[in-house]
Amino acid sequence: MESFFTFLERRVDDCSSLLCVGLDPHKADLEQNNALSALKFSLNLVKKTAPYAAAFKPNAAFFEQFGADGWKALEEVVQAVQEQSDRLGSKILVVLDAKRGDISSTAEAYAISAFKTLKADCITLNPYLGKDSIDPFIAEPEKGVFLLCKTSNPGSGDLQDLPLQSGELLYEHVAGLAGQWNTKNNIGLVVGATQPEAMKRVRKVNPSAWLLAPGVGAQGGDLESALRAGLRPDGKGVLLPVSRAISRAADVALAAANLRDEVMAVTRAIQHP
Amino acid sequence: MESFFTFLERRVDDCSSLLCVGLDPHKADLEQNNALSALKFSLNLVKKTAPYAAAFKPNAAFFEQFGADGWKALEEVVQAVQEQSDRLGSKILVVLDAKRGDISSTAEAYAISAFKTLKADCITLNPYLGKDSIDPFIAEPEKGVFLLCKTSNPGSGDLQDLPLQSGELLYEHVAGLAGQWNTKNNIGLVVGATQPEAMKRVRKVNPSAWLLAPGVGAQGGDLESALRAGLRPDGKGVLLPVSRAISRAADVALAAANLRDEVMAVTRAIQHP
Repeated sequence: MESFFTFLERRVDDCSSLLCVGLDPHKADLEQNNALSALKFSLNLVKKTAPYAAAFKPNAAFFEQFGADGWKALEEVVQAVQEQSDRLGSKILVVLDAKRGDISSTAEAYAISAFKTLKADCITLNPYLGKDSIDPFIAEPEKGVFLLCKTSNPGSGDLQDLPLQSGELLYEHVAGLAGQWNTKNNIGLVVGATQPEAMKRVRKVNPSAWLLAPGVGAQGGDLESALRAGLRPDGKGVLLPVSRAISRAADVALAAANLRDEVMAVTRAIQHP
Repeated sequence: MESFFTFLERRVDDCSSLLCVGLDPHKADLEQNNALSALKFSLNLVKKTAPYAAAFKPNAAFFEQFGADGWKALEEVVQAVQEQSDRLGSKILVVLDAKRGDISSTAEAYAISAFKTLKADCITLNPYLGKDSIDPFIAEPEKGVFLLCKTSNPGSGDLQDLPLQSGELLYEHVAGLAGQWNTKNNIGLVVGATQPEAMKRVRKVNPSAWLLAPGVGAQGGDLESALRAGLRPDGKGVLLPVSRAISRAADVALAAANLRDEVMAVTRAIQHP
């Protein structure tokens, strides 16, 4: 059965890359603080880095803040990724970083928004509301989700690190639930790359899930320790979102190509020591 | 100091109502499945029920699913509430039901989206990412948040009911954190009205917070038991979102007026038995 992660794995093979290029049009990076500048910023990144990107990850917030114009820009960005996929003859996945989480008909409406209106392939979701809040997003195997599990911000311990009576930490429990729920091969987990210990714990509970692991590059994560902790034996299973380390480089294509190569070199060294 | 909840309490006094009229343009309730019909549906509710509404709660998902047009409609809906506030000479609050949750500059962008672009007064947020994911939304006391605490959906137990080593349930811990964090009187909690036991537990941990308590009306919650469990001694502290019980009534104004009166009658009976 074709599923989101079989598509992702095909693309990873096609471009020899575990990179997920983040499309985060921060105010600080825009010519003007408006939707048009956000669009230009994003289209430039898509065009120049597509050959090295397993996926693109537009961050909904940076578009949403411009209202209707921002939402229109976001639609165009997803279309631009589709055009690059057609050009390269290899489907680049779009992970909408939206961190939604709601129930019943509201969750269904968010799934329509992400997958039908915007035509993204995958969305980041918050697990706090439980299984039925996830269901509308995983109904079709070719659409995927990454559930927030262990993030790297200062407040991530407020809930995620709480020890449960079962002996697990809360985020380990989330990792386990994701494993149970993943009957269609379309549920992954968000685990910060800056915390290899957490990644190891997640891997113990859930040996096979794809991890979306932000923190490499501008956020200062150590690439090798993250990959050692998170990679599956097949050399896959970790998708590395990178934003500023690429977008703020003098030559974004070169920065993406170099990072892709570095990731692959580290991956090979881990697999064949 | 003026804060979101002092504004809300003033409005509750002005209209003798604890109702929060939900603006949920479900496909099933629309003439056509598009943004224009969603707008008409919402504007009609705003116009007819404003005198009985302490707040309106537009649900972002039902607008977002229509893309840029939906987002534009959502802006117009918030403006329409503002116009009713001006007409009535009493500020009706807008709670954007968006259940966002992200970190650092992304959280800031969502706060800009909700409070500056859309001009909402309050937003629902997910607590899973911790304190710093909340901070950008509570920086100004006149803007407020309701944090998801204990929801009423089937999967709410997957995380929220987990017993912690401390002896608390996870949602009780969230209720306690909200109390600690609420230094500006602008943090409330979402607790399903259909679960008075949970509401009692939340009240024990957090005696003063406003609770946004969905489930009365079409979802079948028992009004009296919810109010008994959740009301503060001042007869406030519970905001009751109602959607279909009003929007699907033959006369929406009458339905809102009657429900307002019923809530006030129950409140008085509880306060003066």
